[in-house]
Amino acid sequence: MKVKQVLLGAAILASSVSGPAVAQQAQYVQIAELEIDPAQLESYKAAVSEHAETAIRVEPGVLVLFAVSEKENPTHVRVFEVYRDIDAYKAHLEAPHFKKYKATVESMVKSLKLVLTTPISLAAKSQ
Amino acid sequence: MKVKQVLLGAAILASSVSGPAVAQQAQYVQIAELEIDPAQLESYKAAVSEHAETAIRVEPGVLVLFAVSEKENPTHVRVFEVYRDIDAYKAHLEAPHFKKYKATVESMVKSLKLVLTTPISLAAKSQ
Repeated sequence: MKVKQVLLGAAILASSVSGPAVAQQAQYVQIAELEIDPAQLESYKAAVSEHAETAIRVEPGVLVLFAVSEKENPTHVRVFEVYRDIDAYKAHLEAPHFKKYKATVESMVKSLKLVLTTPISLAAKSQ
Repeated sequence: MKVKQVLLGAAILASSVSGPAVAQQAQYVQIAELEIDPAQLESYKAAVSEHAETAIRVEPGVLVLFAVSEKENPTHVRVFEVYRDIDAYKAHLEAPHFKKYKATVESMVKSLKLVLTTPISLAAKSQ
C-alpha cells in the first residue's frame, strides 16, 4: 500500500491549514443513524452494501459511503457519507439505485436520523 | 478523479459478498464521540487535524481518520477511525504523535465515548 492520501483527504487537509473559512468548503458530509428491525438485519446489510457499491461506482459525486453496525447494539447502524457538494447529494437522492434501496429497506428501518456535519479533517490512505 | 475504490473499500466490498463471517474481518473500526470545550474548539480542530495527517502519513496500519463536527452542535465532534487490525490500533495508541495529541487536547475534551463497530461496507472513491 502506498502512503498516499485520497483526493478528499488531501483536499480537506490542504484547506484546513488555511482556517475555518476554507475548511467549511463545499463537501457535503453527513452521518445517518438507523435502527434496523432485528429480524431483517442481514437483509438490510445486503441492501445497504449493494447500494453503496453501486453509488460509489456510478455516481461521480458520491465519494464515501461507510456503513457499520455498533458492536454492542448490532441493529444500530451508522453510515458515514461524503458527497462532492450539495448538488451531488441532491442528485444521489434522485438516482434509481437510491430509490430502489429506499423501497427495499422501507420495512426494515425502524428509525432514521441524519446528522449534518462540518468536516474538520478527512484523512485516509489510498491504495 | 478515477472511479477506483480505495484498498479498504475494495477489501470489504469483496468480502461482504461472502457473508457475515467474512465481513467481520480483522479491520478495527470505531467511532469516537467527543464534546469539546467551546472556548477551545478551534484549537481542538487544529490539534485533531495535525494528528490525523501525521498518523495517516507515518503509520502503515492507520487507514482512515475522518473528523467532523455536528452542524447543529459544533462542539460535538465525531471521528470515524479505520485501522488495519487490532494490532495496528494498539500500535497507534503507543505512537508519539498520538501521545502528543492526547496531552495537547486533555484540557479541551469534556467527554469521550468510543463506539466499537462491525463494518458492513466501506466503499469510497480514490483519486
